[in-house]
Amino acid sequence: MKYFTQFESKELGQELIDLAIAYKANPLLDQAKGQGKRVGCIFLNPSLRTRVSTQIAAQNLGMEAMVLNMDKEGWALEMHEGAIMNKGTVEHIKDAAGVLGSYFDILAIRAFPSLTNKEEDMTDFIFGQFIKYSGIPVVSLESATRHPLQSLADQITIQEHLVGKKKPKVVLTWGPHIKAIPHAVANSFAEWSLGMGHDLTITHPEGYELHQSFTKGATIEYDQSKALEDADFVYVKNWSAFNDYGKILCTDSRWMLTEDHFNNAPQGKVMHCLPVRRNLELSDEILDGSRSLVQKQAENRIYAAQAVLSKILG
Amino acid sequence: MKYFTQFESKELGQELIDLAIAYKANPLLDQAKGQGKRVGCIFLNPSLRTRVSTQIAAQNLGMEAMVLNMDKEGWALEMHEGAIMNKGTVEHIKDAAGVLGSYFDILAIRAFPSLTNKEEDMTDFIFGQFIKYSGIPVVSLESATRHPLQSLADQITIQEHLVGKKKPKVVLTWGPHIKAIPHAVANSFAEWSLGMGHDLTITHPEGYELHQSFTKGATIEYDQSKALEDADFVYVKNWSAFNDYGKILCTDSRWMLTEDHFNNAPQGKVMHCLPVRRNLELSDEILDGSRSLVQKQAENRIYAAQAVLSKILG
Amino acid sequence: MKYFTQFESKELGQELIDLAIAYKANPLLDQAKGQGKRVGCIFLNPSLRTRVSTQIAAQNLGMEAMVLNMDKEGWALEMHEGAIMNKGTVEHIKDAAGVLGSYFDILAIRAFPSLTNKEEDMTDFIFGQFIKYSGIPVVSLESATRHPLQSLADQITIQEHLVGKKKPKVVLTWGPHIKAIPHAVANSFAEWSLGMGHDLTITHPEGYELHQSFTKGATIEYDQSKALEDADFVYVKNWSAFNDYGKILCTDSRWMLTEDHFNNAPQGKVMHCLPVRRNLELSDEILDGSRSLVQKQAENRIYAAQAVLSKILG
Repeated sequence: MKYFTQFESKELGQELIDLAIAYKANPLLDQAKGQGKRVGCIFLNPSLRTRVSTQIAAQNLGMEAMVLNMDKEGWALEMHEGAIMNKGTVEHIKDAAGVLGSYFDILAIRAFPSLTNKEEDMTDFIFGQFIKYSGIPVVSLESATRHPLQSLADQITIQEHLVGKKKPKVVLTWGPHIKAIPHAVANSFAEWSLGMGHDLTITHPEGYELHQSFTKGATIEYDQSKALEDADFVYVKNWSAFNDYGKILCTDSRWMLTEDHFNNAPQGKVMHCLPVRRNLELSDEILDGSRSLVQKQAENRIYAAQAVLSKILG
Repeated sequence: MKYFTQFESKELGQELIDLAIAYKANPLLDQAKGQGKRVGCIFLNPSLRTRVSTQIAAQNLGMEAMVLNMDKEGWALEMHEGAIMNKGTVEHIKDAAGVLGSYFDILAIRAFPSLTNKEEDMTDFIFGQFIKYSGIPVVSLESATRHPLQSLADQITIQEHLVGKKKPKVVLTWGPHIKAIPHAVANSFAEWSLGMGHDLTITHPEGYELHQSFTKGATIEYDQSKALEDADFVYVKNWSAFNDYGKILCTDSRWMLTEDHFNNAPQGKVMHCLPVRRNLELSDEILDGSRSLVQKQAENRIYAAQAVLSKILG
Repeated sequence: MKYFTQFESKELGQELIDLAIAYKANPLLDQAKGQGKRVGCIFLNPSLRTRVSTQIAAQNLGMEAMVLNMDKEGWALEMHEGAIMNKGTVEHIKDAAGVLGSYFDILAIRAFPSLTNKEEDMTDFIFGQFIKYSGIPVVSLESATRHPLQSLADQITIQEHLVGKKKPKVVLTWGPHIKAIPHAVANSFAEWSLGMGHDLTITHPEGYELHQSFTKGATIEYDQSKALEDADFVYVKNWSAFNDYGKILCTDSRWMLTEDHFNNAPQGKVMHCLPVRRNLELSDEILDGSRSLVQKQAENRIYAAQAVLSKILG
């Protein structure tokens, strides 16, 4: 495996889940595997959880993880081929990617969408440039369209709580927010849940349809209460509109899950990628109750990253 | 020992001092003790000396120290139970502390006071939340009320310079400053000096009384020159008023120590926690002269942190 | 070797080049040499390439490299002896350097010029203070006047591409820029090229003369096309005027190298320290063509730093 930027296959998905669960039982299992290797963690957008979990994952494999907060350092990258760089950008992504490729063994990159330029966002241009010019393996720490390490952690968490059931009913429900939020986590969760063979229902207010390349095979149900019936796992996430790109169309607080929402899904577990805005996206009673898997998901971020880095090391 | 947030007992204090002095003689004495362990250093306020000395201490024990500058990353934590998070805060301290507790073996935290809300500051609420929700050991890197690693380093420095004397006369003197400064260093120095059995005199302009929970047992003397008589150790520190909370009541430069102040304390050594504003808090002639212990205090910060981390590792 | 702040001698230069080339072939050759040692990387100005390459170099030697971004942390240092610090500066460089000297084995420091106070810039005052008060070895990561690690990496790159020629013709050419840029890279490249015995020609618009302490022995040629004739290595760099200190006197785009400029230097290789503003300082066709050595120079930054740290470790 050279690149980890999206869901590839059920076989690879299962292999990564199993490896992650093995690392969770014994974090230092492959402590010597990454000796003398370095992963460069490039953040074009800020992060705490992703940064720390990736660093820990690398350390568990004996690798060095080095963090470059390019957003903070005022190191504005030029993205356009042929640009005359007489404005604010100080280095072309071609040159930066080439140098980083000679400094590291693996690059891990976070680059959020603009939420204003739909076409540019959809192509994950920045990842493509790093893949093209660095010449080394690239891991997504969340791109404009996907957040595959989060989704792998989510699938690990689902597997840990399956209780024998082969094909769980998984519901992805939109929750309210005050800001325009990217689609990456929702896209990726749908892509991985479908890819791993779950029965997926997606529920959201009208106008919040995700791109069908991620949701094909899922049931779309605008009635949240109907969607939640008999759910085994309910993933809560806000996203902005995709068709009316980046817009906030609804802030209706009835979409925020409380215990009342689980009358017809008594066994339903609740998931969220964190950070969560309490009592806006998700209620205290859910987050502090026994349905919540959010802390377990966060912990599994370490082992998701460790499995991916390990698989790339080969 | 699970928490290090304040002075506990003379026995524990002496044990930590002795351990620190052993580490100073041989920093790599317990190099394998922290192997595979991680301390997360959470800064809600910036730091250089504390950050670097804690990282070095951890490295000397074979641990990884990871720094999270939450103040810089725009990761505003919600502190209030039950809050509807539809404003500026992006994550509740309960969730953040829980995640960090699953990522690290020890948390070390810096959180300054507001200097505007006296009640909230006095309760060290943030430390309490981290202790409650992380479930792992917590070390204070300076709270609203105390700076125990600084105080431990100060006591190490005093012991190194005691020259046989059993009960030194220690004076804590207020010095001028242009900003409203927290009480943590002064509170903690008083708490530890009294706890370790020193003869402590505190001198400051009227109105600068510290809270008696820290100063009970000390002599309060408003006449600085009288307070300094026969002093063995003189600790200089500015703090803002406590009763008239966070206010600057005096900027009288006569409170700044010069050689003239030591006419009746020829053997007096001078201490300060650094950073020091020269010729405002303390004069060049003192800082550059042979009385000054400030560089030694700063160096001892490493071994204070190393002793505390080692004791927590058990 | 205790300090690495400028070119010292051809013998030392050659020794460092040879050591760097040995490390490039085998980065972990001296993996145990720095065990238990620490280098503090102090950035008074931001950096990515220098920071990362120095950290990797240290790691290759088994050392810990710790980064302190003093520019970001709002830790404004007081530089003036005797200052009454009742303004914005929070710590005197004397005190900071002393503490850092007790925390680290080596300090590596970046401090750019003001480009407004010529006399202060020329004396590299900050480096002198760190050398005086830290008491430990100091490495320049670019000072007001020089960038010796870049120049060492450049000389390694030249040696790798010499193809048997003993005394190459090296040309340092000014290129256009929109900002006032320091002289350090240009000064240092001239100093090292002359010191290593190359035939150096410097070309720039009138008014852009560098200080003769760096260029003595070089041919100054205002006609760029004449300067480039039969060049083996062409180093492109912008700098602001030195005599009319810090001013931009010319932005003529004809100074930007394209393939046409190499009609009389068909074998000429092109160098630049990066980051480069494409199509302003240097054209895409040069940077993306076979003449460009810029990626190799960047990679050699690791081994230049590793050779210097190794030599200081002794």
